[in-house]
Amino acid sequence: MAKGITTREADYSQWYLDVVAAAELAEHAAVKGCMVIKPTGYAIWEMIQSQLDKMFKASGHVNAYFPLFIPESFLKKEAEHVEGFAPECAVVTHGGGKRLEEPLVVRPTSETIIWSTYKNWIQSYRDLPILINQWANVVRWEMRTRLFLRTTEFLWQEGHTAHATAEEAEAETLKILDIYRRFAEEYMATPVFYGLKTDAQRFAGAVRTYCIEAMMQDRKALQAGTSHNLGQNFARAFDVTFQSEQGRLEYVYASSWGVSTRLIGGLIMTHSDDNGLVLPPRLAPVKAVLVPIWKEDAEREKMTARARELTAGWEESISFRIDDRDQYRPGYKFNEWEKKGVPVRIEMGPKDLAAHQVVLVRRDTGVKITVPQENLLPRLQNLLEEIQKNLFERARVFRDANTFTVDAYADLADQIEKPGGFFWVHWCGSPACEEKFQEEHKATIRLVPLNEKKEEGACIVCGKPSHQRVLVAKSY
Amino acid sequence: MAKGITTREADYSQWYLDVVAAAELAEHAAVKGCMVIKPTGYAIWEMIQSQLDKMFKASGHVNAYFPLFIPESFLKKEAEHVEGFAPECAVVTHGGGKRLEEPLVVRPTSETIIWSTYKNWIQSYRDLPILINQWANVVRWEMRTRLFLRTTEFLWQEGHTAHATAEEAEAETLKILDIYRRFAEEYMATPVFYGLKTDAQRFAGAVRTYCIEAMMQDRKALQAGTSHNLGQNFARAFDVTFQSEQGRLEYVYASSWGVSTRLIGGLIMTHSDDNGLVLPPRLAPVKAVLVPIWKEDAEREKMTARARELTAGWEESISFRIDDRDQYRPGYKFNEWEKKGVPVRIEMGPKDLAAHQVVLVRRDTGVKITVPQENLLPRLQNLLEEIQKNLFERARVFRDANTFTVDAYADLADQIEKPGGFFWVHWCGSPACEEKFQEEHKATIRLVPLNEKKEEGACIVCGKPSHQRVLVAKSY
Repeated sequence: MAKGITTREADYSQWYLDVVAAAELAEHAAVKGCMVIKPTGYAIWEMIQSQLDKMFKASGHVNAYFPLFIPESFLKKEAEHVEGFAPECAVVTHGGGKRLEEPLVVRPTSETIIWSTYKNWIQSYRDLPILINQWANVVRWEMRTRLFLRTTEFLWQEGHTAHATAEEAEAETLKILDIYRRFAEEYMATPVFYGLKTDAQRFAGAVRTYCIEAMMQDRKALQAGTSHNLGQNFARAFDVTFQSEQGRLEYVYASSWGVSTRLIGGLIMTHSDDNGLVLPPRLAPVKAVLVPIWKEDAEREKMTARARELTAGWEESISFRIDDRDQYRPGYKFNEWEKKGVPVRIEMGPKDLAAHQVVLVRRDTGVKITVPQENLLPRLQNLLEEIQKNLFERARVFRDANTFTVDAYADLADQIEKPGGFFWVHWCGSPACEEKFQEEHKATIRLVPLNEKKEEGACIVCGKPSHQRVLVAKSY
Repeated sequence: MAKGITTREADYSQWYLDVVAAAELAEHAAVKGCMVIKPTGYAIWEMIQSQLDKMFKASGHVNAYFPLFIPESFLKKEAEHVEGFAPECAVVTHGGGKRLEEPLVVRPTSETIIWSTYKNWIQSYRDLPILINQWANVVRWEMRTRLFLRTTEFLWQEGHTAHATAEEAEAETLKILDIYRRFAEEYMATPVFYGLKTDAQRFAGAVRTYCIEAMMQDRKALQAGTSHNLGQNFARAFDVTFQSEQGRLEYVYASSWGVSTRLIGGLIMTHSDDNGLVLPPRLAPVKAVLVPIWKEDAEREKMTARARELTAGWEESISFRIDDRDQYRPGYKFNEWEKKGVPVRIEMGPKDLAAHQVVLVRRDTGVKITVPQENLLPRLQNLLEEIQKNLFERARVFRDANTFTVDAYADLADQIEKPGGFFWVHWCGSPACEEKFQEEHKATIRLVPLNEKKEEGACIVCGKPSHQRVLVAKSY
């Protein structure tokens, strides 16, 4: 156990908690089930928010804000929805010193309050589509919590769109799924499988739920984002109709979709190592830290001055730090920035200064490269892109090496506990066969792929005909 | 009542609501006391957030996130604080289907949950200062609500800082007050008076509360931001001590400060007119809208193509729109963008096209200027800055024309109901005299100025000696 971090090998769960603690990302709050997101962790959330917000806006979405509280009766209007969410609700019964006539639920998700509002916004096809996103906190009561991955309160974005046709709602649902996939792959450097959830795993109130699923280093799946085609379910529940171009009164079609601070947990478990946090450069709040090194106090001023000279004007292109703290030794600093996941460390000692060079140390591989001081910024930027690519590639290789195609239930049963992984298996489509994985191995069908894996076969459980493989794994 | 907006003259309160509705900024939610912030309103909040966030970060602050829920017992630890906030609290009594052992309060403000956390973060002077800000929703139960100005749930930022000395905490409190003042003046184009609240108006739990106060067009004051020196009150309540550089164990000093979505209400009431919303360009989500004009369908394509040509490449410098909708006539479009407060409208008809010119229409004055199409972007940007300055200047002139120095209580009593305004009066410092304004005129001491207005005089109520004037007004 180096540097206060348990190895993944020794205890994966503890390793995760140690990485979160060592990088100062978050901690359990004094309120049961809730977390405090510390500045370093929140800065990662800000990076995630800023990029996703750009992608949503570029695809025509706008932000708005709906109330935190939902009247209990609203939640009950969509039968599946209330069944899914009621057991997880926090309920406000008193306000302003008085008992409320109707209890208010703290939003676990906002479909009901939003569709009760859309009712007043939509009369005609001219009012459609509505493409709204909201950045907000939500509350789902949890008994067993885990920082970032499962907490009673978490931060997220939730999109809620309204459309005139079923086709448009489906297209929107898939457009967002693609934004989530691109974000995961291009920014989180996390390869994902995407597809459809089974009915058992569908969002409560949705017609179809699509998802992206990533493999963590313990070979378990993390659902990293979901996009729901809600059909006309919420429009019916809240009586939201519109006059179509042909003059007919119809119910409005809907989608909703979200990702949350859970993504930070996914980032950690995809890339980090036994030395602490590893961040993909595009989501790293600090891309590089320059540590000037001196042995004698007399050298300090010269070295820090040169560090400032070397990075003059960088602010506009890159977020970086110079660590010229006097009270800590270089080794301590190296360790600290390593634990915090800064993608590149730049070391510069008196000898480097004399030789007009610096040493670049990659966080992803630990490799040190000595380079000239000339053109350092573009060199650094190239290296950051290389690290970004390498992290993705490393995660992809790991995932693919741990993704198996199996046909015999005995093989699945044998491998899914240890070593674990993702398993492409044939499934007949029956809930009973799906339940068998769940009951015997606590594994679930993570997704039914959209276009690939179409092939005839026999259900791995019952042997009946199956037309495609589905992805089975244990999950968070 | 032109364009569905009541005039200010006829009914100021209704005018405010009409402007909010016509610009589609917000509406009352189905949940009592709460509001829905619509996309146009939320875009203004995003502008406010983005600028303030930059200013906070530039002055060394970082963002973090603390829980929405506060155990009831935490709120009770600071005597004044609980007295101030308990009557406004929303209380969660049930979670996950069970009655909670201890009720949870939905945060009305976060001092208590944050200081219970800081206790674990602070041991030594080396851990100080802590300079954290949080963007969040808060809930304060309100019976009489008003969109943006007073709602049960609202969005805000709350800074919570920890310091080793009383001097540092005071310096931080004043530094933020100055950021708020600069933001109000330079971005909101809203002149403000700043100063100290009296004990009666102090934040519950603070040692000193500083504020900025702006004059609305009905001559009432709006408290637009507050910055509190909390002294050691919360450190004592939560037993947060640190070892000083001299080795002594001391309580930590604190500040807290916030502005909220109320600022949007302030923006509206400072600048808008009987035609709808007027926004200072620096906070306008859309700075300009170009409306190509055509009479015959045949001209449409040519006009919109030229509009696109004219604005090619503008995206990088300015947020603007081209309104080439076919189903609406130019007059309808002009009216719509006027109501929504877009600072500059650019009109271009076939004759303008022939003459290589466009017409710029200022939202603040309604003045039309015909200008050549060459160098349109820099010309537009200059005009936007001019509008920004003009709005500030207009608001300043209005405020100063309605700010009076009075010495006789009869004069104050006579003028404060009608025409109303800000009144600099001598006050002896006694709560009894302060209550007299409140009881007889529903007016309060908005602030005690920091450096100006030091002069000897006699209290306007009791005639006892006074050493400076204070600002009295009716307020929101």
